[in-house]
Amino acid sequence: MALEGVMRPGHAQVRVLDLDASITFYRDVLGLVETGRDAQGRVYFKCWDERDHSSYILREAESAGIDFLGFKVRDEATLDAFEKKLADAGLDPVSVPAGDLLETGRRVQFTLPSGHLIELFATKTCVGNGIPTLNPGPWNEQSEKGIAPVRFDHALLYGPNIAEVKRIFIEVLGFYLVERVLGEDGSTEVALWLSCGQKVHDIAFVEYPEPGKLHHCSFLMDSWEKVLRAGDIMSQNTVSVDIGPTRHGITRGCTIYAWDPSGNRFETFQGGYYPYPDYEPLTWTWEAFPQGLDYPQRKLHETFLTVVT
Amino acid sequence: MALEGVMRPGHAQVRVLDLDASITFYRDVLGLVETGRDAQGRVYFKCWDERDHSSYILREAESAGIDFLGFKVRDEATLDAFEKKLADAGLDPVSVPAGDLLETGRRVQFTLPSGHLIELFATKTCVGNGIPTLNPGPWNEQSEKGIAPVRFDHALLYGPNIAEVKRIFIEVLGFYLVERVLGEDGSTEVALWLSCGQKVHDIAFVEYPEPGKLHHCSFLMDSWEKVLRAGDIMSQNTVSVDIGPTRHGITRGCTIYAWDPSGNRFETFQGGYYPYPDYEPLTWTWEAFPQGLDYPQRKLHETFLTVVT
Amino acid sequence: MALEGVMRPGHAQVRVLDLDASITFYRDVLGLVETGRDAQGRVYFKCWDERDHSSYILREAESAGIDFLGFKVRDEATLDAFEKKLADAGLDPVSVPAGDLLETGRRVQFTLPSGHLIELFATKTCVGNGIPTLNPGPWNEQSEKGIAPVRFDHALLYGPNIAEVKRIFIEVLGFYLVERVLGEDGSTEVALWLSCGQKVHDIAFVEYPEPGKLHHCSFLMDSWEKVLRAGDIMSQNTVSVDIGPTRHGITRGCTIYAWDPSGNRFETFQGGYYPYPDYEPLTWTWEAFPQGLDYPQRKLHETFLTVVT
Amino acid sequence: MALEGVMRPGHAQVRVLDLDASITFYRDVLGLVETGRDAQGRVYFKCWDERDHSSYILREAESAGIDFLGFKVRDEATLDAFEKKLADAGLDPVSVPAGDLLETGRRVQFTLPSGHLIELFATKTCVGNGIPTLNPGPWNEQSEKGIAPVRFDHALLYGPNIAEVKRIFIEVLGFYLVERVLGEDGSTEVALWLSCGQKVHDIAFVEYPEPGKLHHCSFLMDSWEKVLRAGDIMSQNTVSVDIGPTRHGITRGCTIYAWDPSGNRFETFQGGYYPYPDYEPLTWTWEAFPQGLDYPQRKLHETFLTVVT
Repeated sequence: MALEGVMRPGHAQVRVLDLDASITFYRDVLGLVETGRDAQGRVYFKCWDERDHSSYILREAESAGIDFLGFKVRDEATLDAFEKKLADAGLDPVSVPAGDLLETGRRVQFTLPSGHLIELFATKTCVGNGIPTLNPGPWNEQSEKGIAPVRFDHALLYGPNIAEVKRIFIEVLGFYLVERVLGEDGSTEVALWLSCGQKVHDIAFVEYPEPGKLHHCSFLMDSWEKVLRAGDIMSQNTVSVDIGPTRHGITRGCTIYAWDPSGNRFETFQGGYYPYPDYEPLTWTWEAFPQGLDYPQRKLHETFLTVVT
Repeated sequence: MALEGVMRPGHAQVRVLDLDASITFYRDVLGLVETGRDAQGRVYFKCWDERDHSSYILREAESAGIDFLGFKVRDEATLDAFEKKLADAGLDPVSVPAGDLLETGRRVQFTLPSGHLIELFATKTCVGNGIPTLNPGPWNEQSEKGIAPVRFDHALLYGPNIAEVKRIFIEVLGFYLVERVLGEDGSTEVALWLSCGQKVHDIAFVEYPEPGKLHHCSFLMDSWEKVLRAGDIMSQNTVSVDIGPTRHGITRGCTIYAWDPSGNRFETFQGGYYPYPDYEPLTWTWEAFPQGLDYPQRKLHETFLTVVT
Repeated sequence: MALEGVMRPGHAQVRVLDLDASITFYRDVLGLVETGRDAQGRVYFKCWDERDHSSYILREAESAGIDFLGFKVRDEATLDAFEKKLADAGLDPVSVPAGDLLETGRRVQFTLPSGHLIELFATKTCVGNGIPTLNPGPWNEQSEKGIAPVRFDHALLYGPNIAEVKRIFIEVLGFYLVERVLGEDGSTEVALWLSCGQKVHDIAFVEYPEPGKLHHCSFLMDSWEKVLRAGDIMSQNTVSVDIGPTRHGITRGCTIYAWDPSGNRFETFQGGYYPYPDYEPLTWTWEAFPQGLDYPQRKLHETFLTVVT
Repeated sequence: MALEGVMRPGHAQVRVLDLDASITFYRDVLGLVETGRDAQGRVYFKCWDERDHSSYILREAESAGIDFLGFKVRDEATLDAFEKKLADAGLDPVSVPAGDLLETGRRVQFTLPSGHLIELFATKTCVGNGIPTLNPGPWNEQSEKGIAPVRFDHALLYGPNIAEVKRIFIEVLGFYLVERVLGEDGSTEVALWLSCGQKVHDIAFVEYPEPGKLHHCSFLMDSWEKVLRAGDIMSQNTVSVDIGPTRHGITRGCTIYAWDPSGNRFETFQGGYYPYPDYEPLTWTWEAFPQGLDYPQRKLHETFLTVVT
């Protein structure tokens, strides 16, 4: 009852070109907390206020992009049930044994028609947020080291067949549609924001010819003032900024898009509203999409539609 | 899957002594939107960003307090299922036919061991938030009329037997415990914050000898700056303020407590964090409760423990 | 002693193409308070928290731009003294009799080597900010009508000979240099921010071949959150936005640049620091100017250097 | 011209009971920057964004309180002129040679009829704010160490004869009255806020029978969010909080009052408005003083009137 099934995006594994430079960036500039390195050389991070062992994993590779996005489900029984549902839906789930990712249980992977590898898991070691669970304060020193987002929030993925992707997320995984953009034809959905809880997006998709592309991973900030501070830190560290600070019309969120040293876009954002599954999805026309992207400027930044990894 | 069962506190019916004065207060000072009046003389309000017909209902009476708190569930089938679960749990649910509350479907009521009347419902007319669902802006004029909270957020209720109340909310209604305060004995739970989604509280209880008491109904603000503005408006309208502006240690929320013209306490609050059901509940000792209540001052305001309606 | 001589930018007279459209814009969108119209057809505005009769005056004309910028000095004796100083400095001051501008005393005008008409005045009727001077609240309803800046803050003017302009403002008018940008040669000052009090700028200049040009008039907001709200209102009213929301490196101020219906740029900004005349001016190199303009993005928006009225 | 004469409160020397505990408090909790210790054992601090060597000086003593408050004037010639004016006004100025305070020039001291020792000085070594003057960023790491106020802002002093004190500050030192509170008789000024620039207060006085008392030294924060953060840090360090967070009606400033380990009250505040000497002072009646002190709560906190050092 209440919050069941898929709870949240639990982790993303992202490819970087230069691991050392990336570790420095994600630890010192974005301000994630490093929590481990595995035998494959992958480096694990979490945001300061997250309690699970890791939410953002770096793998050194020849090209940037996302390896997979993993959602944490309520428990192992739920994972088993989803494995069956995925199989019934013809999505050919593959089981990855516990321990392949550090401090993480069994994972069930499948590939979306958009070309993205998605996985579900139920178990990840709770390492806490560095604040005692007895008489906890509201924040700690890690919340001010670097940009220091609160949590890994969501990802926006680019690929083909998002109508089918939407069906899978809604019918198989229990998500609901929060907002959408219609294409120039006035009817095709070309962008989708989907939630599995009360966030305005746990995952989002844009229709795009090339499969498996990452537009951005997004990290939550606590306030608009913290978004400004994020921009200051980006400038102080010569981070390449794409868009913002600004407000999205879509989701109402306030945002900066920037790129990590490998060219993976990331977002530091704040705000939005709290949707529920009984809400009618909000719709943006193609003509209004510039306003949906950059509300004050109503500008369709070309990079938004064309630069992905 | 995902957000199922109970979704949110959908409405509270609150007793006021002077209906006209209360309407003026809730409309012009708190800035709720009036949406209807019924044959019994009840007056219906919603917060500007809520989409359902009503979330706060006034009934004129000899004494202040809360008549009932209603939770909206996912759909009518869910309501039927809960009715059976409540009956199985010996809670003697009573069905109130659709239409008794304006624009609201069938409700299933039951009484908690704390003496509070709780109800579930699945259907309420969507009247929208005054912003089109096509190319919606982030806010509208109503968001600046009076204090103008975003939504009715939760209630804190005082009464006996909250251990049993907790069991019902968790086992029957699918809530989970987010935070709690232990009594002077170091083990008894004397205060509980419970969630059915990702809010730090959808309902809260404090152990109290008298049954059925209301501590406060709470309304969400968008930012700490809006909490300050709420305090300014309270001053401009000679509203009696109890505590704040300040931050709670418990839930991290930033708050002002004040009283409506009938003596019903209400809260305008902001912030907190986003819990999940797999999070270990946070615990406050009795000694730390003053810090949990008023984080900067660490002061156990006497009114918090003694003044209820 | 203390704050003497020139106190502040008191008013700007700006040319607009369509007076009615401009009145609607400045009153309903920017949220200025209209305070009068004169026999010449000029329309007078003030910001809600200003106490003098007017700070922004519209005149209908064939081309957009600024007619003059007026500074309020401490009193009439100070005005007389400045008139003499200006004459001694060879600036040929011209006296405009009291009453030429509504509710405004005698003005002393002179032309800068940059081609701008500047004037000094000592007397303007105090109309108050709409809040009583006895037991005043912190704000009133006018502070939320439209963008509703707190005050007319400064202007940035483009023209030739700014080295000489700087000398006049410092030696004759008692201003001091707060920040400056050096040109590509590493030594010529190409942009200057000057203060006569504790504001980071009461007036600013950029070296530019054409004389008498207006880059923008600037209006102060109370917080970064109010700058966001300004951007939202611009979007809701289809105002053409140039840059922002963002932070300037120069002055630290947080800003949005946009255009009025006639193409006059205006700024809604917030923040910065409080300089004093004993502070060493801050210097920006040409290479760092993009960071000085748009701190997060470090982008030299072309419009900033080329679009003026 | 412009900002002449007295520029600002330049430093306060405050007595503390336990020097080591006080150093720890002011450095690690309030987050001031230690800049030196002298042969007498005094310890010098500045706020992170101040450029002069020191603004807050601790002296170990048997009792808490303030030794003197020093104002920085425009230059040595101004200091000489003030020395003569003070002598002419019968205030018997005494010259303290340069070097008595570290990195500080000659000081001219005199005693107010309220029993407070005030001094003027023109010279103090500029040590900078830790940010280069070439291509400066908006803040640095020191701005996040502890509460980290921007500047020492003002002091509120309690003592007798404030009518005479007011006359001296206005007629001799060139300040102007910004706000005032009238006593129960409706005519006597019992509290005064005075400015020498554009701050809502550079110094303030409350009529009080005991001479030479300190109510609080005040430190400026950048935003209401930073005031909240200050309160969090107070709680984390068990600092004794007096009032707040709240908004003053008087000056509109947002504030927390707390006590240092010796019982000296200090304020972390933000906001207010920018007055000018041509503004009519704002007046608060005795009946409205609770609203002037604590705008949301309209509560006359007893400690405000009775606890001083």
